[in-house]
Amino acid sequence: MLIGKSFVAGEPVDAAEGSFSAGREAARFEEASTGHVDRAVDAADRAFDSYRHLPADMRASFLDRIAAGIEASDDLIAAAHAETALPLPRLTGERARTAGQLRIFATLVRDGSWVDARIDRAVPVRTPLPRPDIRRMLIPVGPVAVFGASNFPLAFSVAGGDTASAFAAGCPVIVKAHPAHPATCEIAARVIIAAADATGIPSGVFSLLHSTRADIARALVQHPRLKAVGFTGSLRAGRALFDAAAVRPEPIPVYAEMGSVNPVFVLPGALAERGAAIADGLKEAVMLGVGQFCTNPGLVLGIGDERFDDFVQRLDAHMRAAPPGTMLTAAMCQSYETGARRLSGIAGVATTRSEAVAQDAQALPSLFVTDAAILLSHQEVSEELFGPSTVVIRCGSIDEIYGVARQLQGQLTATIHGTPADLEEYAPLVSILENKVGRLIVNGFPTGVEVCPSMHHGGPYPATTDPRSTSVGTAAIHRFARPVAYQNFPSSLLPLELRDENPRKIWRLIDGELTKDSC
Amino acid sequence: MLIGKSFVAGEPVDAAEGSFSAGREAARFEEASTGHVDRAVDAADRAFDSYRHLPADMRASFLDRIAAGIEASDDLIAAAHAETALPLPRLTGERARTAGQLRIFATLVRDGSWVDARIDRAVPVRTPLPRPDIRRMLIPVGPVAVFGASNFPLAFSVAGGDTASAFAAGCPVIVKAHPAHPATCEIAARVIIAAADATGIPSGVFSLLHSTRADIARALVQHPRLKAVGFTGSLRAGRALFDAAAVRPEPIPVYAEMGSVNPVFVLPGALAERGAAIADGLKEAVMLGVGQFCTNPGLVLGIGDERFDDFVQRLDAHMRAAPPGTMLTAAMCQSYETGARRLSGIAGVATTRSEAVAQDAQALPSLFVTDAAILLSHQEVSEELFGPSTVVIRCGSIDEIYGVARQLQGQLTATIHGTPADLEEYAPLVSILENKVGRLIVNGFPTGVEVCPSMHHGGPYPATTDPRSTSVGTAAIHRFARPVAYQNFPSSLLPLELRDENPRKIWRLIDGELTKDSC
Repeated sequence: MLIGKSFVAGEPVDAAEGSFSAGREAARFEEASTGHVDRAVDAADRAFDSYRHLPADMRASFLDRIAAGIEASDDLIAAAHAETALPLPRLTGERARTAGQLRIFATLVRDGSWVDARIDRAVPVRTPLPRPDIRRMLIPVGPVAVFGASNFPLAFSVAGGDTASAFAAGCPVIVKAHPAHPATCEIAARVIIAAADATGIPSGVFSLLHSTRADIARALVQHPRLKAVGFTGSLRAGRALFDAAAVRPEPIPVYAEMGSVNPVFVLPGALAERGAAIADGLKEAVMLGVGQFCTNPGLVLGIGDERFDDFVQRLDAHMRAAPPGTMLTAAMCQSYETGARRLSGIAGVATTRSEAVAQDAQALPSLFVTDAAILLSHQEVSEELFGPSTVVIRCGSIDEIYGVARQLQGQLTATIHGTPADLEEYAPLVSILENKVGRLIVNGFPTGVEVCPSMHHGGPYPATTDPRSTSVGTAAIHRFARPVAYQNFPSSLLPLELRDENPRKIWRLIDGELTKDSC
Repeated sequence: MLIGKSFVAGEPVDAAEGSFSAGREAARFEEASTGHVDRAVDAADRAFDSYRHLPADMRASFLDRIAAGIEASDDLIAAAHAETALPLPRLTGERARTAGQLRIFATLVRDGSWVDARIDRAVPVRTPLPRPDIRRMLIPVGPVAVFGASNFPLAFSVAGGDTASAFAAGCPVIVKAHPAHPATCEIAARVIIAAADATGIPSGVFSLLHSTRADIARALVQHPRLKAVGFTGSLRAGRALFDAAAVRPEPIPVYAEMGSVNPVFVLPGALAERGAAIADGLKEAVMLGVGQFCTNPGLVLGIGDERFDDFVQRLDAHMRAAPPGTMLTAAMCQSYETGARRLSGIAGVATTRSEAVAQDAQALPSLFVTDAAILLSHQEVSEELFGPSTVVIRCGSIDEIYGVARQLQGQLTATIHGTPADLEEYAPLVSILENKVGRLIVNGFPTGVEVCPSMHHGGPYPATTDPRSTSVGTAAIHRFARPVAYQNFPSSLLPLELRDENPRKIWRLIDGELTKDSC
């Protein structure tokens, strides 16, 4: 059933560069060559102009058809389960989310207002010079490379948010398949290829390349006709792609989402009111998906009084009793164990591990407790440890908490637990954290990322390489578009979105006023 | 009257690193040190939080006050004229434009809708999980460095568009003064400092550093607390800043506008209808400001028939008769002459120079005529030659024109002269050029950049380092802002822009619908 090959412009291609298998499965996948990279980007570039000029409804139907194909595929769930060890209910939920994302972008494309159309009409009588007619909208940038995540084999992989938003913008996509779930990638790729075929989309808009090699990733990012890169994964890999793109003769943007420690601040009033409930909720958030979420809360801060002791004790008991969990790959489990050992080896860090017995590739939940001085003097304490663990920082005062907050690196999220009185008393914390994060949560947990217009899943470096961008929610489409202004154009030559009569019925800024009217 | 010193957080500072003078003037300016860079960025960082939280009206009043100060300063015009040799009427016009830009951003800040507010309200009854309340808006990024242009000593310099848009977004600004017009920079800086003082703006929001040294520019761009860079100038200098920012531990965006050759395509019908008028207009555009505009039309393409010969002949006569012009600096004039000699030395390039006699730092207008084969085999033919010159490419056919257009590098603009019949017949040209440029003009000239919401003054590399960004028009503010999402926030803790009652009366996307209503 599986072919085990890369797909270039919709067709499987032969390779002679060896093969690899995902850790848990026997099926082998052929390594793509730099020749395949060239063919894939060239095909994308050739398909670009026809794809971007298709009626919006065709692009939307393509996305809807992919959504239906993903939703209907039980093979996809079975493959993802076998390859990632993620539980079936989680994968079924992720499949629904993936289809939902594709449909949200289909709706956005049909609606059309995302192009941010602006029209300033001519003023021939203006002095000293007449004002020309100028109209502006967003157009797609060109071929996009997508590097999917290991931890969301559906929602952040082949047919995930990056691909959906790039297709929606009008960009062809070359996906570099994640080698930890290549069979899942192949199945999703075939869904996309079938959807393109069924909706009359040129086959060059999609290619899938299997590779475990850094030089292939670099060749893709450095291909002269590639125009942007979407990535979700580790800081090390994301930064390498960013660096490769920055030294190109023509630099291109790399939208790398690289995770963070997502600090949680527990304020005194909240601790008094519902410390136990916060500990219970925190433990759930830390354990979710064996701690393999980019929004996993990896740092917890509070003022170290008696109530905080009770809170930590409860968290400690939870962790001791927590079951081990199978991680995505054996290598990740190994990294987790290495990192946990490094943290527990720091003098002044108290470590609690789950008392359960772990099998192969199973991670034991961990709790680390230390103070602000240790945090500030040991960089690894505030770095992401990917897996079911969190670090509690017992601070001496609120000023120490502010001091730690000011020293934090960029984060996807930060969370504050506080009563209304806490939030008033400790208001500077919000202001400090606004400069550090992409999303601020009050009295909740950072896991669970809504897909909606207001979602911002991004944040200052090293959370991402571009804090203006989000990889979740409708604003993700803006990563793959750029403005073009049309001056003094005859109506027949203008894109539909900019014609006087507003045939697409979109929102436009006309002479400074936002309206859906015609000119 | 002139102090000749850098200003850190509004105060002149002493330096001991030597001094320099602008070529034409005797006044000397002290070189800033890396210590000044540190102090300026640290002051900006300290001022950032109070500045960004000021009421929008205060920020707007600050911008308005700068505009009034610029408008009232005749010293500014006198200094700019002495330093740049640009004629007084041009500088008076540029001063009006500079004040106008500042006021447009004041209006944008007062209006408030630029923050792109989005609200998705909670749905507690949603299954399987309730939907939280999420609200998102743009906030300023932090301290911004601005490197002004030599060719617009007012509109793209100390109080120019980059500074105006950064202040409008809520960012403190450190300007690296252009060493070709340091007195002009000092006068504009003092206007800004006085405006901050008069409107209660913290002094740390503005510093001015005088320097001729690349290591000072690099120290500024690589300061850990700097968050973005605006630049207008040469490809070499812009790319150096981009590279310096990309290798930072925390990379930051560099918005470098580096100019282009702005190709003009003259189609057969237009040539037949009004070839002489196009040649006349083109000559004016090439000569404007001694060819020192980033939108200077440096490449002219047409099908080499008899009518095109007539057109070229007329252009040739214009150039022969054109007066010499004094360039911004002697070094630029030297570069222009070197470049002109290099082009005329290429076999197959016919050169016409103005027959006038040039004085010191005066450039002689030049016309170069060649064919597509020479263009495609000699990179320098399609590279910007800063000064009063243009290169005519005589193509063999429309397909050759398409071929050349496909090979062009990124451009700020491209222009097509055509009759309605031309534009229909040669429609592929528009589609090819959309992928190459930031602005497309029909039957006009690229010089003259409107400051309005629909203006896009940007374009694919090497026109800029970020084709999503514009350095002119209201959208320029988005370079210095990034989104933050607020989840489950109590109303009192939310920014005004996101509160239910919409006290700022701004446009917001509420549950997917754009409205000025309250929630």
